[in-house]
Amino acid sequence: MAVQRSAKGRRPGNQDTRGEILTAARHAFAAKGFAGASIRGIAAEAGVDAALVHHYFETKEQLFLATVDIPIVLTDLVAQVTASGLDGLGDRLIRTILKVWDSELQPSLVAAVRTALTDPGLTRSISEFLTLEVISRILTAVDLPEAEASRRAGLVASQVLGVIMGRYVLKLSPLVAQSPEEIASAIGPTLQHYLSGDLPSAPGQGSSADRADARGFDG
Amino acid sequence: MAVQRSAKGRRPGNQDTRGEILTAARHAFAAKGFAGASIRGIAAEAGVDAALVHHYFETKEQLFLATVDIPIVLTDLVAQVTASGLDGLGDRLIRTILKVWDSELQPSLVAAVRTALTDPGLTRSISEFLTLEVISRILTAVDLPEAEASRRAGLVASQVLGVIMGRYVLKLSPLVAQSPEEIASAIGPTLQHYLSGDLPSAPGQGSSADRADARGFDG
Repeated sequence: MAVQRSAKGRRPGNQDTRGEILTAARHAFAAKGFAGASIRGIAAEAGVDAALVHHYFETKEQLFLATVDIPIVLTDLVAQVTASGLDGLGDRLIRTILKVWDSELQPSLVAAVRTALTDPGLTRSISEFLTLEVISRILTAVDLPEAEASRRAGLVASQVLGVIMGRYVLKLSPLVAQSPEEIASAIGPTLQHYLSGDLPSAPGQGSSADRADARGFDG
Repeated sequence: MAVQRSAKGRRPGNQDTRGEILTAARHAFAAKGFAGASIRGIAAEAGVDAALVHHYFETKEQLFLATVDIPIVLTDLVAQVTASGLDGLGDRLIRTILKVWDSELQPSLVAAVRTALTDPGLTRSISEFLTLEVISRILTAVDLPEAEASRRAGLVASQVLGVIMGRYVLKLSPLVAQSPEEIASAIGPTLQHYLSGDLPSAPGQGSSADRADARGFDG
């Protein structure tokens, strides 16, 4: 195989170097989680300079996505989804997710989910990655009140995860049968409600002020 | 090990017989899915009479739950959840699910999900089991209009699956941090909305009559 040339003229290493970095990264993420693993530690295990890891993968987040074989530039997606702030965010979020998962990436994404769930170390990495990178970036971008941000993030994550698991991994027939438009039109308002609607406070928790108004549904 | 005595006085077989039935059942469910596998075929593979399979496991559904090591009597749970019909069903559904998953069964349930997702055959079984047994039983019990039942079932499944995956399997911190009461108070209304609220119809599909009213959220 031909050695790739670097546009920046730096010594690019070769295919094996890239592979060794990925192997070291997989070990590190599995052993230490996404938060605990470091580019420096991964570089040391692969026997290369940390700069070379950045050269190939730019960020820890992109390195992680590469270890699970998902060629997505997450920052671009997050920027796209959060571009217009909180208004209509639920709708943009579910439509972006459906677009990515209904694309040619689907087999890689499903394989990544399967692999991640077989290995508790990798499950932890994925979990930390979702929480720290994906969810917190979206929340930061739209600037929710901090006190409620975590609860809302959890609810959003629960609905998004369920659509992904049900439609793409388990392939439940009632979810596969619906068009992306049908799903988005029903799920978008739920996500928006979790993001910006009035959530009922649990007894003994949060503000008890206007409990009667704290209903976000017509039912 | 002592041979179990059957209350009905029938020859109960022994521990190995039960184990052989479970092994045959695991093979059958993985190869043919939940719908395709039969008690008769499983009995034949285990070299026992079909009656003995029923003796140990009563139904195919309970046999399936035994293969994934989950000692739940599903019919009891469904009866409990659907007892009062559609009214308040969303709330009862999420509370029952949280009760089961926050119980001492949690490790078995998480292990079952992990195992199920590693093996495409087993994933298919679980998917068929959820669709045919769990979801359709609940829908039958509450008698939803057939045209909408499948779409509503898919939406309910997506939210329920996401809570299970996020809180118990991935253990996402914003979901683990919430009390069952907090989760139920936010998720219950979503489920009720999916079950009985006005769902927006996707463009070009379903009734276009009262689109303006077809909003179930305040947002």
